[in-house]
Amino acid sequence: MSHNSFGHLFRVTTFGESHGPAIGCVVDGCPPGLPLTEADIQHDLDRRKPGQSRFTTQRREADEVKILSGVFPHPESGEQITTGTSIGLLIENTDQRSKDYGDIKDKYRPGHADFAYDVKYGVRDYRGGGRSSARETAMRVAAGAIARKVVPGLVVRGAVVQIGPHRINRANWDWSIINDNPFFCPDAAMVDVFAAYLDGVRKSGSSIGAVIEVVAEGVPAGLGAPVYGKLDTDIAANLMSINAVKGVEIGDGFAAAELTGEQNADELRMGNDGRPLFLSNHAGGVVGGISTGQAVIARFAVKPTSSILTPRQTIDRAGHEADILTRGRHDPCVGLRAVPVGEAMVACAIADHYLRDRAQTGGVRHWPGA
Amino acid sequence: MSHNSFGHLFRVTTFGESHGPAIGCVVDGCPPGLPLTEADIQHDLDRRKPGQSRFTTQRREADEVKILSGVFPHPESGEQITTGTSIGLLIENTDQRSKDYGDIKDKYRPGHADFAYDVKYGVRDYRGGGRSSARETAMRVAAGAIARKVVPGLVVRGAVVQIGPHRINRANWDWSIINDNPFFCPDAAMVDVFAAYLDGVRKSGSSIGAVIEVVAEGVPAGLGAPVYGKLDTDIAANLMSINAVKGVEIGDGFAAAELTGEQNADELRMGNDGRPLFLSNHAGGVVGGISTGQAVIARFAVKPTSSILTPRQTIDRAGHEADILTRGRHDPCVGLRAVPVGEAMVACAIADHYLRDRAQTGGVRHWPGA
Amino acid sequence: MSHNSFGHLFRVTTFGESHGPAIGCVVDGCPPGLPLTEADIQHDLDRRKPGQSRFTTQRREADEVKILSGVFPHPESGEQITTGTSIGLLIENTDQRSKDYGDIKDKYRPGHADFAYDVKYGVRDYRGGGRSSARETAMRVAAGAIARKVVPGLVVRGAVVQIGPHRINRANWDWSIINDNPFFCPDAAMVDVFAAYLDGVRKSGSSIGAVIEVVAEGVPAGLGAPVYGKLDTDIAANLMSINAVKGVEIGDGFAAAELTGEQNADELRMGNDGRPLFLSNHAGGVVGGISTGQAVIARFAVKPTSSILTPRQTIDRAGHEADILTRGRHDPCVGLRAVPVGEAMVACAIADHYLRDRAQTGGVRHWPGA
Amino acid sequence: MSHNSFGHLFRVTTFGESHGPAIGCVVDGCPPGLPLTEADIQHDLDRRKPGQSRFTTQRREADEVKILSGVFPHPESGEQITTGTSIGLLIENTDQRSKDYGDIKDKYRPGHADFAYDVKYGVRDYRGGGRSSARETAMRVAAGAIARKVVPGLVVRGAVVQIGPHRINRANWDWSIINDNPFFCPDAAMVDVFAAYLDGVRKSGSSIGAVIEVVAEGVPAGLGAPVYGKLDTDIAANLMSINAVKGVEIGDGFAAAELTGEQNADELRMGNDGRPLFLSNHAGGVVGGISTGQAVIARFAVKPTSSILTPRQTIDRAGHEADILTRGRHDPCVGLRAVPVGEAMVACAIADHYLRDRAQTGGVRHWPGA
Repeated sequence: MSHNSFGHLFRVTTFGESHGPAIGCVVDGCPPGLPLTEADIQHDLDRRKPGQSRFTTQRREADEVKILSGVFPHPESGEQITTGTSIGLLIENTDQRSKDYGDIKDKYRPGHADFAYDVKYGVRDYRGGGRSSARETAMRVAAGAIARKVVPGLVVRGAVVQIGPHRINRANWDWSIINDNPFFCPDAAMVDVFAAYLDGVRKSGSSIGAVIEVVAEGVPAGLGAPVYGKLDTDIAANLMSINAVKGVEIGDGFAAAELTGEQNADELRMGNDGRPLFLSNHAGGVVGGISTGQAVIARFAVKPTSSILTPRQTIDRAGHEADILTRGRHDPCVGLRAVPVGEAMVACAIADHYLRDRAQTGGVRHWPGA
Repeated sequence: MSHNSFGHLFRVTTFGESHGPAIGCVVDGCPPGLPLTEADIQHDLDRRKPGQSRFTTQRREADEVKILSGVFPHPESGEQITTGTSIGLLIENTDQRSKDYGDIKDKYRPGHADFAYDVKYGVRDYRGGGRSSARETAMRVAAGAIARKVVPGLVVRGAVVQIGPHRINRANWDWSIINDNPFFCPDAAMVDVFAAYLDGVRKSGSSIGAVIEVVAEGVPAGLGAPVYGKLDTDIAANLMSINAVKGVEIGDGFAAAELTGEQNADELRMGNDGRPLFLSNHAGGVVGGISTGQAVIARFAVKPTSSILTPRQTIDRAGHEADILTRGRHDPCVGLRAVPVGEAMVACAIADHYLRDRAQTGGVRHWPGA
Repeated sequence: MSHNSFGHLFRVTTFGESHGPAIGCVVDGCPPGLPLTEADIQHDLDRRKPGQSRFTTQRREADEVKILSGVFPHPESGEQITTGTSIGLLIENTDQRSKDYGDIKDKYRPGHADFAYDVKYGVRDYRGGGRSSARETAMRVAAGAIARKVVPGLVVRGAVVQIGPHRINRANWDWSIINDNPFFCPDAAMVDVFAAYLDGVRKSGSSIGAVIEVVAEGVPAGLGAPVYGKLDTDIAANLMSINAVKGVEIGDGFAAAELTGEQNADELRMGNDGRPLFLSNHAGGVVGGISTGQAVIARFAVKPTSSILTPRQTIDRAGHEADILTRGRHDPCVGLRAVPVGEAMVACAIADHYLRDRAQTGGVRHWPGA
Repeated sequence: MSHNSFGHLFRVTTFGESHGPAIGCVVDGCPPGLPLTEADIQHDLDRRKPGQSRFTTQRREADEVKILSGVFPHPESGEQITTGTSIGLLIENTDQRSKDYGDIKDKYRPGHADFAYDVKYGVRDYRGGGRSSARETAMRVAAGAIARKVVPGLVVRGAVVQIGPHRINRANWDWSIINDNPFFCPDAAMVDVFAAYLDGVRKSGSSIGAVIEVVAEGVPAGLGAPVYGKLDTDIAANLMSINAVKGVEIGDGFAAAELTGEQNADELRMGNDGRPLFLSNHAGGVVGGISTGQAVIARFAVKPTSSILTPRQTIDRAGHEADILTRGRHDPCVGLRAVPVGEAMVACAIADHYLRDRAQTGGVRHWPGA
């Protein structure tokens, strides 16, 4: 058991506070022989990096990852590959802006973990959110970059599908524009709407929630297990563990409550390629806890950033009532930077189950029967 | 790691198929000294038992639980108490109605785990859903009955808040009627609506989804941990692991995506009792992964029962296209009986974190500061 | 984490007290498709069963195991095979001889867990040792019977190599006589010596310790991992967890402390079959935590049975000094029946690492290089 | 599950290769509020550091540990304390002497993990033993320094009790001289014998095994659990996981095989202080898996260093027969530096069970009865 780890066979353990000297993680269980360089990881980290548009926090972190262990040149090709030992990753914190933390040191910010944290531990690194900072998610993205390599053919992509009252039109979905706008928005018509709306939020010192959708393609059928070892159970847990997430759905999710059995059935035919073909994907690629071979689809809701410029009522450590407003650098919509984090967490869950499946079945698939 | 266990310190491991000789579980980590009899567990099991109204499956199971280990008379009082050793529970299957399983033996029922299961394992007990049967949830309810005893003062209750298109009016919420109607419905005005609607569903051989809300009161502040050991992460996982669940929310859940930071802030004042008083509970009792002392609120969406009387297109094990319809005894709304299961899973998550917290902090609370 | 489980991917969880209604276990992670009947398990259980000679306890238990889940007929052959779901096993306790437990209820038997147990839990099932009874090891043997099937070609055998001052002559080692004498003794010349010696111990109401050696052949090279996931670490843990075990060795064990590096080196040549050939096996088949393909050899020391007829000084629950002697049915040398238990625990460790290896490497072996 | 972690509630995860940029670890589950500085850890690390006498390897590593997370000034006193979040520790490798590794790159050194490792992974960092290097044990010592603080009053000390054929005289045992001789030898009369003997071993380019004893005082009664959660099971596993260890004993260990039940019984009286008093400690402080309150005593055997100057027969990666001798800097008796490592591993096991016990029982002790 661990409070700072997730995954079973592809296991990630992280450490580090927002304003400490460094954050880091250990990735354990990675198969040997996978090509892995710092550039591979950096690519994903850069997608999450703050300060890249006016819609994210202006904290500037290089977020340069170092691989401290677990890789070595291939004995013949010389290409750097994983060795099967634990992979240590480190990112030094560079932008620890010196400032007066007096207010948040003693007053509990509503919506933040401050109060609950102090009740439990009696001490906390309050600087920049300490261990509860979204900065920790950089290590999830780094681990996810490795997870993506574990499952051959796996492609995991995420998109913002809702910001506040504005939802994208799914008919316009276009993956190719995702990385070309600051919102990971797949609907070209929505980009300006999001921009105008978030500018308003930002200028008023407010914040807003969002919904992110993650789609994993290339997931082999047969990952997961009935009962507690469900693939979707672990995806739900991984996503819910991201800062500020309050809801998780698989496939049709909450909308399934309004469906009849006839509507919800994903019927099966034989495809022209001689393989099973599902006619729909209400299930989001997981039935009875086991992947079907369809795309795995998950969505998660991110609450608005708790740090806002309007004073809120609170109490302090001494039990006195007080007001607090949170100055400083913040994301008006923390959901935006949650996209690569969500992708990483889904990739990690799938990699973990890929290894779990290989352990129990040897990776052998039994279709068609006999 | 285990495919058939959940929890870390309050750990539950189950076994058994729907039509095998018995189902059972082992509850490990339970503190010694808690009063525990079969009647305590039976009370919760009876709330989940099938065949109690026309709205649930007509399979008739006594669901009589036997405690096989882990209890002994108190050395002085003679009252039966837990001893701290693993608690073995067993329920014999009595209503294994003999029938012809030919159709579901070879054809994959859309919405069921059949296809994914067969691809993975190459063999399955297809009788009554085998290991994927909701019958397994009886053991969750049994384990939950023990979990409720672990945390002093804990009260966990669930209710159906939506069936198909019909949502309860939260203003009418009345816990006292929950167990007096077949829907665990907290809104007296909605009971007849649910009944009429479900009668229609049932008579047409169809099925419908539902949303269940679980509320845990008496949860001490300080349970959970930042990052991966979050209380809400484990609640989400536990609920998502229930058969047919497709979505999970904590507090405002997906609605939080539409809130501003000002709206979402749960402000704090000092109560008349000299203790912190939250003015709202958008967070659902968990902030930053740690309980605040407020009620913990979770909701989950259950898809419609996949077994329906309208034929659906599918394939069989040999790769031939076919139609299938599922005769037999089924719940028109499997969400109804999910209420005690959801309660149990939330109770287990809280009990687990109660023990985890006690391990790390000794259960000491640091409020107010110093 | 669990107090009543062992193994990670081949995971065994047990429950039950010596004089409760039943003992049982859940085996989780077993691959699908392995032939498994009750007779397979019973064969090993019968080797451990009490009451088979005058040298073991006269308690008479049928020890009939029932498989409650996890098996089903093969879709084509009809042979009963594992399905990949959790396997529930149950043995009902039949010989719970009614008697007066007054003495052991309140007095702590030296050498038994009574005192430490009561300090910790404050309550215990004192009848027949309760949870600490060696009766629990029946479930280990049952699980071990399944573990043996997980690794193709695996053969695990054990033998008693020392009873009290009497050691076997290794030059006489003959596996074929192991099951034909009541001591699992591999040295024909030693059988009468053991018999005469143990008759003396038994008649005097005393007891004596023993050393058991377990040899596993057919262990593929490459199981285990450096650092903490060592194969020998888990073998040591599994053996040390057996009741009354006080020491564990791998290969030369403690004798290695007297060896020089030259003596201890297991040199390598190429065999006539074109495969690597070790010239010795000081390592006991495990180097750096990873199996070499040689036989895995482990030994463990079992202390004398604590229940003896000579009174010993002790205290009772109220803190009064007292004397105690333990009447009833006991093994004069509990080490004898530990042989099948030791085999089972080694088999379980190897099965677990076989699955762990398959997860991380896919089971691919890289020999020779390239 | 993890190949690079140990412990459950006091959980340690390490990474790093001997000649990589750094080694490190994450300590998870540490209670908040414990004073912790780098100096606390450094003190133990310095006892393990190489190059401090002519009897250990001449590799010179500063072994300077950095705490990267998990500590913060106490809100009132300002003293640096643990916060309850994961503690990241890092030691940079400084003495990565550039050299030609050609010989060990392709040839498998007998006694080393080279062959088994390559069979399994197909790639390895062969420089200085890579992940299998004893250098990794520095992180165990660092973690152990924290573990010692978790259990109030715990004192864990180790000593070398045998080198090759030379055993100390237990009657001369004197803890006060342990750190004043290069052998952690508790018998003043033996120091010169060890020195003369090891000088001979060293000069001949040979190596020799050793036995280390670790004694933990101040262990509360009641830690551990029956069956698989035994305290001694975890001590055995922790010690067996140390490089080159081939045997582990608790209390009388293998000698218990020669004892009768009368001899082995640790009788109990009431002490003058009104507390239970054991008259002997054959059990080594653990009975039935649970600590008794006596000193916990464990011993482990370390095989001779495999790197020696006499050529040994081996094969290379291409399957050719070859000879190999291992030049370079090596410990003639790797057992010496295993002393602080053994202490650390025992301390970690005890800390883990201290937290486990607190979880299940709340740390409440039930003696005398009721």
